[in-house]
This record gives sequence, C-alpha cells and structure tokens, in this order.
Amino acid sequence: MEHSAAIADRAEKVIARCKRLASITETPGSTCRTFLSIAMRECYRVVGDWMEAAGASVSIDAAGNLRGLYPAADTGAPRLLLGSHLDTVPDAGAYDGVLGVVLAVSLVETLEDRKLPFAIEVIGFSEEEGVRFGAPFIGSRALTGKLDDELLNRTDAKGVSVRTAIENFGLKPADISQAALSNDSLAYLEFHIEQGPVLESLRIPLGIVEGIAGQTRGEFTFLGRANHAGTTPMTLRHDAMAAAAEWILEVERVAKMEKGLVATVGRIAATPNAANVIAGQVQLSLDVRHSSNSLRIRTADFLAVQAEEIAHRRGLTVQRKTLLNQPAVSMDPFLMGQIEQAAVNAGCAVHRMVSGAGHDAMIVAGTIPTAMIFLRTPGGVSHHPSESVSVDDVAKAMECGMLLLTQLGGSAEFQKRMVRA
Amino acid sequence: MEHSAAIADRAEKVIARCKRLASITETPGSTCRTFLSIAMRECYRVVGDWMEAAGASVSIDAAGNLRGLYPAADTGAPRLLLGSHLDTVPDAGAYDGVLGVVLAVSLVETLEDRKLPFAIEVIGFSEEEGVRFGAPFIGSRALTGKLDDELLNRTDAKGVSVRTAIENFGLKPADISQAALSNDSLAYLEFHIEQGPVLESLRIPLGIVEGIAGQTRGEFTFLGRANHAGTTPMTLRHDAMAAAAEWILEVERVAKMEKGLVATVGRIAATPNAANVIAGQVQLSLDVRHSSNSLRIRTADFLAVQAEEIAHRRGLTVQRKTLLNQPAVSMDPFLMGQIEQAAVNAGCAVHRMVSGAGHDAMIVAGTIPTAMIFLRTPGGVSHHPSESVSVDDVAKAMECGMLLLTQLGGSAEFQKRMVRA
Repeated sequence: MEHSAAIADRAEKVIARCKRLASITETPGSTCRTFLSIAMRECYRVVGDWMEAAGASVSIDAAGNLRGLYPAADTGAPRLLLGSHLDTVPDAGAYDGVLGVVLAVSLVETLEDRKLPFAIEVIGFSEEEGVRFGAPFIGSRALTGKLDDELLNRTDAKGVSVRTAIENFGLKPADISQAALSNDSLAYLEFHIEQGPVLESLRIPLGIVEGIAGQTRGEFTFLGRANHAGTTPMTLRHDAMAAAAEWILEVERVAKMEKGLVATVGRIAATPNAANVIAGQVQLSLDVRHSSNSLRIRTADFLAVQAEEIAHRRGLTVQRKTLLNQPAVSMDPFLMGQIEQAAVNAGCAVHRMVSGAGHDAMIVAGTIPTAMIFLRTPGGVSHHPSESVSVDDVAKAMECGMLLLTQLGGSAEFQKRMVRA
Repeated sequence: MEHSAAIADRAEKVIARCKRLASITETPGSTCRTFLSIAMRECYRVVGDWMEAAGASVSIDAAGNLRGLYPAADTGAPRLLLGSHLDTVPDAGAYDGVLGVVLAVSLVETLEDRKLPFAIEVIGFSEEEGVRFGAPFIGSRALTGKLDDELLNRTDAKGVSVRTAIENFGLKPADISQAALSNDSLAYLEFHIEQGPVLESLRIPLGIVEGIAGQTRGEFTFLGRANHAGTTPMTLRHDAMAAAAEWILEVERVAKMEKGLVATVGRIAATPNAANVIAGQVQLSLDVRHSSNSLRIRTADFLAVQAEEIAHRRGLTVQRKTLLNQPAVSMDPFLMGQIEQAAVNAGCAVHRMVSGAGHDAMIVAGTIPTAMIFLRTPGGVSHHPSESVSVDDVAKAMECGMLLLTQLGGSAEFQKRMVRA
C-alpha cells in the first residue's frame, strides 16, 4: 500500500485530469460533450493514452464505449469492470461520470504492472446523460444487449440517427452485439460523485450505494373554472391554482413521512396564467422515488387519491397520466460488504445509501453483480460548472479502491465467482 | 308606463341589436372591435342611426366616443349621461359594454319624443378594454380630461400611436379637450352585465353598484435552491414550489376571512420548471380587491409578511414588487337610492354590491355623480362568445331605467343639482 502522501498526489492528478477533460468540449467557454461528437473523439484519444500508459490495451466498441483491458496474472482469467461515462450535460462540471473513469485508470496505474487473478477492464461509457437523443444510457445498454433498433433509429435535433452517428464516427452498427458483456465479466464497480447533499450533511466522504431508487413520473391536471379575479367571490370559485397548491403541499407532507422517500412537483403550467383571471386549469408534474417499489407505487397512488379528494371538495376534477414506472435496482450485497471492509481498513467512514439518480450501474446491474461508490459532493451541486470534489475525498476513494482490488484478489468467494464465470 | 308585454318586446329588440353589433367585427368568425378600427366605424354608423331615429343628434368626439344628445324640454337645461363602451375584447360576447349603450338608446326610444327637464346624452365609449394599446379607458379618460400625452403617444402592436389612430379615423387630436364633460353634465348612469356569478347565485336580476373595488397588483418571487429531485432528501430542500404553494393557500385563507375581499394568484412561473428538478424560483402574481382601500392595502401587506414568514421558515427568500395600487371608487348615494326606489316600484329585487371589475363609471365618477346597474350574468360568463343575458332581466332593467328617468325628472333634489349645474 502506498503511503498517504503518494495517494494524495494521485488524487491531485485525478482532479487535474478531470479538469483537463472538461476543457475538451463542443461548446467553447463551457463543458459539453455529447455522444460521439468531435470533442468525444479527442477525449477518447487523451483517456486512451492514459490507459495505454497504465498497461491496458485500448479499443472503442461499436456503441462508442472506450474500453481499456489491463490483463490478469493468467491468460484466460475473467475480468472485473470499472468505469463510468465520458459524455456530459451542457454547461457541465468536470466530475459527473468523468471522475469514475479517471479514477479507475488511476487505480490501474497504482498496480504498477502488478497483475491480479482477474483482468481489469476500464470502461468509459459513450452516453449516459441522454442529451443528444433524449434517451439515456446508450453506452451501458449496448453492454447489456439492450441497444435495440428503436433506440438506434432515434434522431437528434439535426435528424441524425444513433445508427448514423455511430457510422459517422467510423464504427459499425452491425458490430454492436460484440459490445455486449462477455461471459467472463465478473462484476461492475462504478465510482461517481453523489450529486446530492446527503454525504456532506453527514460529514462522510464516501457512500456505498445499496440500490438505485425506482421512479414514478406522472402528470396531474386540475380542471376548475377560469373566471374574473375581480368579480368572482371567494366562495364561488373553482380555482385550479388553489387546488394545485393544496396538492403540492400534500405531496411534500406525504414524502416526509417515509425515510428515503422523495416526491417532487417541479413543473407547473397554469391556464390562462393571467394575473386577473382565476386559473381554470393547472398541470403539474409528479416525480416519486424510493428503493422500495411497493412503497413508491403506493405513494403515487395515494397522492392520486388525495388529488381526487382535493378536486372533489373544491368542485374541480383532476386527470392523472402515468409517464414512467421504473423499478428500483439493488446493488450486489457481497460487493457492498467488500467495499465496506475496504473503507474500514482505509480508516474511512462510509454511509450506505440509495441513489436517487439513475446511473450506468443501474443498467449493468441487470446483467452482472454491480456496486457503486459515491464521493461527497460539495453543496450537492452537480450538472453545473461549479461542481467539485475535494482532494481528500478522492484520496479516500483511491485508497478504498486499492484495498478493494487487493481484497477481491484474495477473496475465496470472489474466486468462486471466477470459477463460475 | 308601458305594459310588460311592450317592455318584453323592447328587451327582445335590445338583445337582437346587441347580437347584430356582435357581427360587426375585425376578426371574421368571432367578435373583436378595438379602438377606432374599421369595424368600429361601421358599429358607430349602425348605433348612430338608432340614436338619430330616437330623436338624438349624433356626433363623434375627438377621442372617438359616439355621442347622441336627446334634447330637454327647455333649451339650456343640463344633461344626464347614459352609456357604456362599444369596443370589445378578442373573441368577445355580445353584451359586455354594448348592452349599456343599446339599452340607453332604447330608454330614449321609450320617451317617444316626450321631453324631460334634462337632456339625455347617450355615450358609446370608444375604448374601455385596453386591448389595442394595453391601456384601458381611453374614451372615458378623454371625458374627464385625463387623456394625456403619455397615453396619446402609446403605440399598438403595429407601432401606430393613439394620436395617429385618432387622425387615421378622420378626427383631430387637437380637439380632445372639447371631448371633456361640459359643466352642464349632471350625472352618469351605466348599465352593464355583472360579469360575475353573484346575482345569479342570489337569484336576483339587478344589482346596484355601491362602488368599484380598489385593486392592488403585485408580483412575488420565492427564491430557493434548484436541485436534483432524486438525490436531494426532503429535509435538505429549499423548494420554491412548495413555498409558493403554501403562500397560495394563505392568500385564499386570508381572502375568505373578510366579506367582499377577493385575492387571486392567477399567474405562476417556475424555474427551471422541469419534472426532475426541485424548483429554484417561483414567481407569482397577486391581485387583491376590496371596496375599502385600507382593508385592501392591509391585506396585501399582511400577505407580504406571510410570504416572508413562509420563505424564512423554509430557508428561502422572497421578493415583492408592487405593480398597481388603484383606490376604490364610490358611486353616488343619491343615485343609488333613486335606483333602489325605481327597482322597488318595478317590483324587482335588487342587491347592493361592489364591482370587482373596472368600468368607465370608475373613471367618470371622479368628475360627476355616477351610478351603475348590473344585470345578472348567466354562469358569470363574460369575455367569451357564450356571454348572455335573459330577456326578463333586460326587461327589468328597462323598466327600472324608465321609472328612474321619470323619478329624476320629478325629484326636488335632482332639480337642485340642475340649478347648481
């Protein structure tokens, strides 16, 4: 094990590399890298050089994922996957996704040509944010065989399809099936910034993700009666805005009742939306997330009942539309235990938590055992140029990762998995 | 006094005339007549013909108001003004404003050349709705000497000023001062549909307007923190949407506490207004109206304090902007009494009420004694093609108006006013 000063140096280097990648952008003056853009090619060149220097053989699969394979002690040994995504949102920070790839490369570097009983494949996913095609996880879906024709035919704002974008990058859509996880893939581990305020509020540097919350998205429309704000007495109103307000507070009240439950009304549209007219119609979004599918669905249904009750009491009606019902995903308990042990050995406090946001790990977990490690995010700020991580927290994550690789290399249970693979 | 069948016939004719005027429009397929448009010229031709046939001499003043003067028994006698506005909102109904003018013409017709101790001037105001120039009451402001240069220089969507519109209609802006009320103007009486649900809910055909509510308009902006709807626990949120919702309900609660008070949040704009992002900012309109200026101002101030309290408790801030502070206007008590007596004599129940909406009477009341009579509005529906009035209610209004003219002609107190004039 390296001493802590050396690890701090590596952490500084990880952060410097993330900042360097942030300067590779398709939008001068801010960071933006979408699926298979010219900026992405330059990003792959730079990250690919780092991978090669660390002893990995580099390739780009037909879904545009950057893959660096660092060999095992023995040929024919299975592989452990480490990585995250290299695409960004518009006006992005430097760490969302990128940190997980750069940190994985750095972990391979710490091996300094020492070989483990398994190979390590570092993956930089080509697409996770859904910016260019309005559909996320193009990279990780290819790994799990879920990059179907429907998705391949989706077009961006300029009418270019995913398929054509792949061809334009010099890749072959026909080879996408070869991007799928090979049978020797043991597990997937993703480091990622938390993108939320929980670890910071607990003053804990690292989080072990237990699962990724399921998500229900819906649209509720209260239908009242538009009327003159001056001539309609309070008692004769059917005010869709007031009904909506009552329901928004009910959403908040119900969500606060259960640990880990979040429910949000983030979007609102009133009609006619004029200062001197009582709103006749108000449309609201609802976003409910929890690690328990049944609690999430029960909550969304209860909120629909409450909307009905509020509408009925006020002489309005309400319409509900369900837009998304995505089940929760669990992380692998064995890997979670291993991460916890590594953190303890690194002298680092960890917190087990549910990820409210979706990640590549959510997709990959459907195919192989998967785990995620969150890094504390100052201010919970993400998807913004001021996104940051501290050197200390990156050092803790590095140390934890190094111990984890050593542990897995020596773990009898992990060996059994290797035999199965 | 005519018998009731004759009055019903006149009421039918009034409604038919309103419907005919609704067909004179600048927007084929729906009713829209804005200030001094080509449709307005045709409307003036038709209404002017009716005025002349009833024995009035017709003119158009320099602010575009159509004026028909029916002489008194003696030359040199002062005049009573009757009227309302002839312009409309887009996609209008047939009665808002128009009914008051047509009904006034019909009242003059019932005199059948019988002369009263005062002349009757029927006014069809050129502009009340504020559609073309975004500023209402152009017609009645000219009568009270308040059509100033600022208003004359306002431009419509095509860059045409009020002044140029007047010239284009063949009128002389330099003559606007001659449109002002002459010293022999005794009083102004306006019939108008209620445009609200109060009379219908009370099952009463006519309302005597006691005053026109003062109006406070403001804008409140709650500033919280935009954040990820999935990764931000309920307890760590600064949700501008939830704060806004709490305040909207507070606005409703406070308004319900005082009779006649109305307070409305009709407009809302959330930022970033995305389903998966906690709102960082929500901007809301506030419209407060009451006949008591002090209660209205106290209410708006109290709601600002409540907004502060809600924001503070939730870790947000709130900004207040006052956009309008328009004092309430009282109608003339003597005229109100005379209307009530006429209604009693007509066997018609009346209800004294405050107008929550602005009307030409609000402007004219600043200069001469003014009164308004409201007609029940089915469903409270106005500013909509389905706006309507019943023949019975129009007949009641006619009967009440006829009795009122006779009363005023014989009233000792009104005679005193005539002497003063």
